[in-house]
Amino acid sequence: MRFSSLLGHLSALEETTPRDLAGDPLLSGAAALDQAVAGQLSFLEKGNALAAALAGTGASALLLPLDPELQAQATAQGVAWVALKDPRLGFAEALDALHPRRARPAGVHPTAVIEPGAQIGHGVHIAPHVVVGEGSVVGDGCILHPGVVLYDDVHLAEGCEIHAGAVLHPGSRLARGCVVHSNAVIGSEGFGFVPTARGWRKMPQTGLVVLEEAVEVGCGSTIDRPSVGETRIGAGTKIDNLVQIGHGVTTGRGCALAAQVGIAGGARLGDGVILAGQVGVANRATIGDRAIASSKSGIHGDVAAGEVVSGYPAIPNRLWLRCSAVFSKLPEMARTVRQLKSET
Amino acid sequence: MRFSSLLGHLSALEETTPRDLAGDPLLSGAAALDQAVAGQLSFLEKGNALAAALAGTGASALLLPLDPELQAQATAQGVAWVALKDPRLGFAEALDALHPRRARPAGVHPTAVIEPGAQIGHGVHIAPHVVVGEGSVVGDGCILHPGVVLYDDVHLAEGCEIHAGAVLHPGSRLARGCVVHSNAVIGSEGFGFVPTARGWRKMPQTGLVVLEEAVEVGCGSTIDRPSVGETRIGAGTKIDNLVQIGHGVTTGRGCALAAQVGIAGGARLGDGVILAGQVGVANRATIGDRAIASSKSGIHGDVAAGEVVSGYPAIPNRLWLRCSAVFSKLPEMARTVRQLKSET
Amino acid sequence: MRFSSLLGHLSALEETTPRDLAGDPLLSGAAALDQAVAGQLSFLEKGNALAAALAGTGASALLLPLDPELQAQATAQGVAWVALKDPRLGFAEALDALHPRRARPAGVHPTAVIEPGAQIGHGVHIAPHVVVGEGSVVGDGCILHPGVVLYDDVHLAEGCEIHAGAVLHPGSRLARGCVVHSNAVIGSEGFGFVPTARGWRKMPQTGLVVLEEAVEVGCGSTIDRPSVGETRIGAGTKIDNLVQIGHGVTTGRGCALAAQVGIAGGARLGDGVILAGQVGVANRATIGDRAIASSKSGIHGDVAAGEVVSGYPAIPNRLWLRCSAVFSKLPEMARTVRQLKSET
Repeated sequence: MRFSSLLGHLSALEETTPRDLAGDPLLSGAAALDQAVAGQLSFLEKGNALAAALAGTGASALLLPLDPELQAQATAQGVAWVALKDPRLGFAEALDALHPRRARPAGVHPTAVIEPGAQIGHGVHIAPHVVVGEGSVVGDGCILHPGVVLYDDVHLAEGCEIHAGAVLHPGSRLARGCVVHSNAVIGSEGFGFVPTARGWRKMPQTGLVVLEEAVEVGCGSTIDRPSVGETRIGAGTKIDNLVQIGHGVTTGRGCALAAQVGIAGGARLGDGVILAGQVGVANRATIGDRAIASSKSGIHGDVAAGEVVSGYPAIPNRLWLRCSAVFSKLPEMARTVRQLKSET
Repeated sequence: MRFSSLLGHLSALEETTPRDLAGDPLLSGAAALDQAVAGQLSFLEKGNALAAALAGTGASALLLPLDPELQAQATAQGVAWVALKDPRLGFAEALDALHPRRARPAGVHPTAVIEPGAQIGHGVHIAPHVVVGEGSVVGDGCILHPGVVLYDDVHLAEGCEIHAGAVLHPGSRLARGCVVHSNAVIGSEGFGFVPTARGWRKMPQTGLVVLEEAVEVGCGSTIDRPSVGETRIGAGTKIDNLVQIGHGVTTGRGCALAAQVGIAGGARLGDGVILAGQVGVANRATIGDRAIASSKSGIHGDVAAGEVVSGYPAIPNRLWLRCSAVFSKLPEMARTVRQLKSET
Repeated sequence: MRFSSLLGHLSALEETTPRDLAGDPLLSGAAALDQAVAGQLSFLEKGNALAAALAGTGASALLLPLDPELQAQATAQGVAWVALKDPRLGFAEALDALHPRRARPAGVHPTAVIEPGAQIGHGVHIAPHVVVGEGSVVGDGCILHPGVVLYDDVHLAEGCEIHAGAVLHPGSRLARGCVVHSNAVIGSEGFGFVPTARGWRKMPQTGLVVLEEAVEVGCGSTIDRPSVGETRIGAGTKIDNLVQIGHGVTTGRGCALAAQVGIAGGARLGDGVILAGQVGVANRATIGDRAIASSKSGIHGDVAAGEVVSGYPAIPNRLWLRCSAVFSKLPEMARTVRQLKSET
């Protein structure tokens, strides 16, 4: 694809957007600035650590920030470029254009098993060895990759994509445009047991798991259904791999949960909450809008909106950084205290 | 179902159990006290934070604790109720009655592959795309959901249920009534390698994984078999999602292991041990009966029976709480110490 | 198998290797020294805690270290033995001889689906319900267990073994002799999103995941592909269960990553790095050759070659041990400081 054609795929492009076609190179792929070779597109953001790599890049075309100096440099190097307010977003759009996704033809593979009473919409692609259970509903344009299992009473709205090996249990309700990655499990029984004299007695888990629009669930992640009521993941929330979400959890819109996060039953997250890798959230904890927890934090109580927390138990991030610095000097401090004490 | 019929499903009900049928409402489901609407059952425990929600509940019937005041209040509101010593247990029984599980007919789906020499008991349900390997034994009344794979030499006793996508490797031995949830893996090779001049050399893992009666293994959890001997999970132990149990681990009866717990090879847990989410247990550590570790604890050495531990490395919970409180004041303390030192 | 035949399977055996056939017992299996019974092989290493178990062992034959005293003791007990520099390595070889792996006949099961344009090598075993996508290549002698899914454009070199339920996505490149365990996911989309006014916008993940020779990936582990470039796991690296490896990570040769480790995008590990269970490595952190991180460590910055680190944030292990010891005495220290302050 010529660079000039690629420009047509950038949503931010206007007539006045600065650019230099520089021979309009033919592009066959993309790479990071310091790894790109001829025929590849790359990009650079303002303040990016890779700026120094611009001088030596082999890329044939660049998405640059609105920085005349960088633009002049690219032109001097004979590299084609366009300057965007958000070069990273442009790069995402360019990658889609350079690597169009393989279209999946509508149809049900003969090895798939669609149980009686299941409803399959228009334009649905059902791959080999898929199972769709009684009373389940697959909306228009959904893609079910090989080996996907929908138990009974699973509802997928239009345009959901379920990757190979994912399993959806009864009571799963996916709004349109959700993506479930390989081997994830949605709607499994919450971990609820009643202690009795004869051991743990299972609390039946009869509730729903609701994924609102455009939720994405990573590989191997698990989202449990509750005994009653629902577990709800807010629209546009993105969940990475191997994340556990307990029964009755609710999250707001646009949250981002990194890999191996665990959220215990009944916790509530606001909108735009970001949890970094391996964070744990305890039963019934509440986290306000746009709060951020750094990796490995353990959250027990309530986190206010907009707060940034760290550590275990989680405390404000700035405080934690200072406490951690002192922690690594504790042996020295202990010595000083002993000495002071002996002197009194 | 009428409330009066539902009462017949409660194991604790006696002639003298206090109750008020209040018109014997028709029940179609259940919900939490603060979310229930007409036609729904709910419950309340002694000391439950939801007690305040009783006044406003929309529930048509309630399972109450043995508390005359609450009972009088419900009657005054016109809500049907029964009073039980353990309302939570009653609620579990009621949910089973209100949401009876779909019966799975006996039979082997034509897409399932049963290898020669496998033995299938009476009343077994084998769903689409299941594989049962050579010499494996599936006991009476077992349910194998879609896509389950039993390798060779897997033994399931009566009444086990294996959910979609779970994989059981050679040497897996499940006693009756075990439940394995979706995409869990039992009996996989332990992570054993011998360092050699040419790199890591695999130690063959030829042992067994034994799940005693009524063990439950959560979605995506993994239980490894050892090089020799066995990994053993005690009767009635419940394991949540994404838990890793290393080769040669043994647990006692009735343990509860929350999500994302990791137990390294050779560790030994007593009876009734409770590990909260994301706890780690190191190689060969031992944990006594009924000990409890709070979330994210890291256990290296030995934990005595009945002890409650926290932190990393894990120390007694009460001590840890006090230490953590001081931790968050370390910068202030460091300042004081510096000041004291400068004054001497 | 007679003990004398077993000796033929030990790579270290020479004519002069000390041994005592002691009647050349018939061996049917192996066990730990303190659990072995007649007919079983066991082994003992120098300094092994089980040395005391030698006197009472029921084993019929032993692999001993080069220690004349232990050899004399075994002879006195009438137990057959051979003495090796590395008895553990010998035990691995002996287990392979005593428990030969079931041969998997070449062939494609009729329920497997091989899409047009896929290439299947010689001697390949493809089990029931496997799917091999368009343009994927399965090298000679590979074994694909039941339910394995290869999307399009997956390349397996010779002799790879992919266990049941594992899923390999486009762009996965496995060199020869790799093993992927059950329900692992390779080449899934990295967790990359661009923040926009309308929420998270997916960054397409068009790169490769390269597993070099003899890499092993544990059950349920996930290795993501990057937006551009590659994620690369060095030759001979062994990865345990439920490990997450983010997009663009590279590891050197011969690393060992224990269960539930998480490595965020772009991190770089040198050769021979060992990460214990539940360790987390942050975005773009770098870890030098042969560095070791103890369990639950959280690594943010750079770890030098050969360093041993612990804690969160990770600091040198010896320092961390001393700091942790002081941590558990913080309440006492705080009291002392308060007292000193009040006295000034």
